[in-house]
Amino acid sequence: MKIYISGGATSKFGELWDVSPRDLVKKVVGEALKQSGLSSSRIGALFVANMLSGTLGGQDHLGAFFAEELGFSIPAMKIEGACASGGLAIHAGVLGILSREYEHVLVVGVEKMTDHKPEEVARVLMGAGSDEERQAGVTFPALYALLAKAHMEKYGTTEADLASVSVKNHFHACFNPLAQFPFPITIEQVLQSPRIASPLKLLDCSPITDGAAAVILSNNKKTVSVIASTVATDTLGLAEREDLTTLKATQEAAKIAYEEAGVEPKDIDVAEVHDCFSIAEILAMEDLGFAKKGEGGKFIREGKTKLGNSLVVNTSGGLKACGHPVGATGIKQMVEIYQQLSGISGKRQVQNARVGLTHNVGGSGATAVIHILKSL
Amino acid sequence: MKIYISGGATSKFGELWDVSPRDLVKKVVGEALKQSGLSSSRIGALFVANMLSGTLGGQDHLGAFFAEELGFSIPAMKIEGACASGGLAIHAGVLGILSREYEHVLVVGVEKMTDHKPEEVARVLMGAGSDEERQAGVTFPALYALLAKAHMEKYGTTEADLASVSVKNHFHACFNPLAQFPFPITIEQVLQSPRIASPLKLLDCSPITDGAAAVILSNNKKTVSVIASTVATDTLGLAEREDLTTLKATQEAAKIAYEEAGVEPKDIDVAEVHDCFSIAEILAMEDLGFAKKGEGGKFIREGKTKLGNSLVVNTSGGLKACGHPVGATGIKQMVEIYQQLSGISGKRQVQNARVGLTHNVGGSGATAVIHILKSL
Repeated sequence: MKIYISGGATSKFGELWDVSPRDLVKKVVGEALKQSGLSSSRIGALFVANMLSGTLGGQDHLGAFFAEELGFSIPAMKIEGACASGGLAIHAGVLGILSREYEHVLVVGVEKMTDHKPEEVARVLMGAGSDEERQAGVTFPALYALLAKAHMEKYGTTEADLASVSVKNHFHACFNPLAQFPFPITIEQVLQSPRIASPLKLLDCSPITDGAAAVILSNNKKTVSVIASTVATDTLGLAEREDLTTLKATQEAAKIAYEEAGVEPKDIDVAEVHDCFSIAEILAMEDLGFAKKGEGGKFIREGKTKLGNSLVVNTSGGLKACGHPVGATGIKQMVEIYQQLSGISGKRQVQNARVGLTHNVGGSGATAVIHILKSL
Repeated sequence: MKIYISGGATSKFGELWDVSPRDLVKKVVGEALKQSGLSSSRIGALFVANMLSGTLGGQDHLGAFFAEELGFSIPAMKIEGACASGGLAIHAGVLGILSREYEHVLVVGVEKMTDHKPEEVARVLMGAGSDEERQAGVTFPALYALLAKAHMEKYGTTEADLASVSVKNHFHACFNPLAQFPFPITIEQVLQSPRIASPLKLLDCSPITDGAAAVILSNNKKTVSVIASTVATDTLGLAEREDLTTLKATQEAAKIAYEEAGVEPKDIDVAEVHDCFSIAEILAMEDLGFAKKGEGGKFIREGKTKLGNSLVVNTSGGLKACGHPVGATGIKQMVEIYQQLSGISGKRQVQNARVGLTHNVGGSGATAVIHILKSL
């Protein structure tokens, strides 16, 4: 796959009440273009990842919207697949480069969530789930709580295992100046935080976040290459799944990605995985082949994915501590891995990182998108 | 461009209160698959075009949603670009085939609009326009009325010219059993219909519609080929445009499409153009190079694009008389041209049609998507 990354940037993630989506996007695109050394006229197409601008802000048509903001009149479209919108937009960008229709494409993700009432945000986020789930009144913490319960029951995963995901990701976020929560937390703090949907507590849950990220994909050789880009889907609702202790879409997308890239899980040095809730990172460790089925919790609790190990997961702080501006998340993941493989991640740099992976999930696992990157 | 059409189908367009989006999509996909002779397991990816399911129905994540409904676990994503969503999804599908990542892709467009109050539909449709336009309280009839006024002032286009678009498209729709309004209307009726936004009257406007359409794109040779797929963008708002008598995005996308396809406007035998309002078809005639600038109205009024001529426009009945289920429209256009070039259009068949064009617009011209098709 001859896809290279020419540039990538992430905005500050957090409650950015004084910054518009326009400004967020202009900033990250400006930085990505600067890195790439490309003039904006070289960009052939724009893929915008966003989930909620229509339902929360009344603005659709974001492809043309941001093309105009950026001063382009190029082909542009919005891609949506719930919290996997960013990963899907990158996949579309990859197809654009591989098609040879475009030499350089810009993939931008943005979400502005904190201007709205949290109840309203929770409601529109349920657009990612099934009719039946919406009608039952469940929200995503409840759905992931069901996954956590099933895993705890079958494999003996503990609340402390869950908590250790958040503790590690907050630790990593301390080294990421763009993170929403760049401070450490303890297992005890997680366990004592308010229960949202048992067994998940407040500090098991990723926050609501404003932010943007941009990446430029190119067909000419650069130092970091995308060597796999895969997508798989599963049922929208949990009720239709055979097994609640695995995300089948992750497994399927991973299997094809490893084949496409010609690498194995043990070759991955650094990964950004979709930890919307702590249980999700445990499932990801297993479904991506990093830990044996049932042992994801122990694997993380023992610190095997923390900075300093041969595999480091969520150096950005993950969705939990870096923040989760839905449409931007999948693209932030790629920017993080791109920076790691470029050796420019500062205090959170993974030594000798050569192969990295991003894992972006939509809903409770109905969409999974995986990219594998390699430094050349 | 080695892209072929393996199958395509359109549902009945209209007020389909007793049919769900699920059923509409299953029906058209079933028909398209049957035509293609492909088993569903051969479909590599699904691109879903839709604008309003989130804002009107609370359901996002339509890629995985319809993949599940169809029994697939394949890569799937939703593409949105207002009323150009269908054309954009086809463009994404074209990139998918050209990338060689997928051999066969399914592109589905669907919209369910008539279950909701028209005022609510008009409100969410304004998501296609600019902030300023929404704040000013204008709706799309008003925006296109401004385009009509500018054209009338500069070129002397008359209300009868505008009316002649609707009259022709209703005439064509009489031969389309799937059309929403398969009955003739007269110039007099258009002129006497209630004014919506002067000079546009009720019968100058396309309706609110439910419907779906599907097309299967393939890399193996079939009888109809896609020989150009282009997208261009312009400002979202009319206030930022230099010239209101032309849609620049249409002109740009058309220029590249003709080059890509190696054909000229005079080579086009049959075209489906975006007549969301009568003025839009007049602009399309000019911007696509079928008529001289300023003469689009006269060109249509003189019957030069009616069945029986060397160029026939909107044999389906167009958005005006076939209906305009937003996400489905761009895909219905391609199904119509595919059927015309296959010689299976029955009473509305254009004799010896060999080269066809589709023209799909988002908003008041912020996005334009053009496809050129050829029978082999």
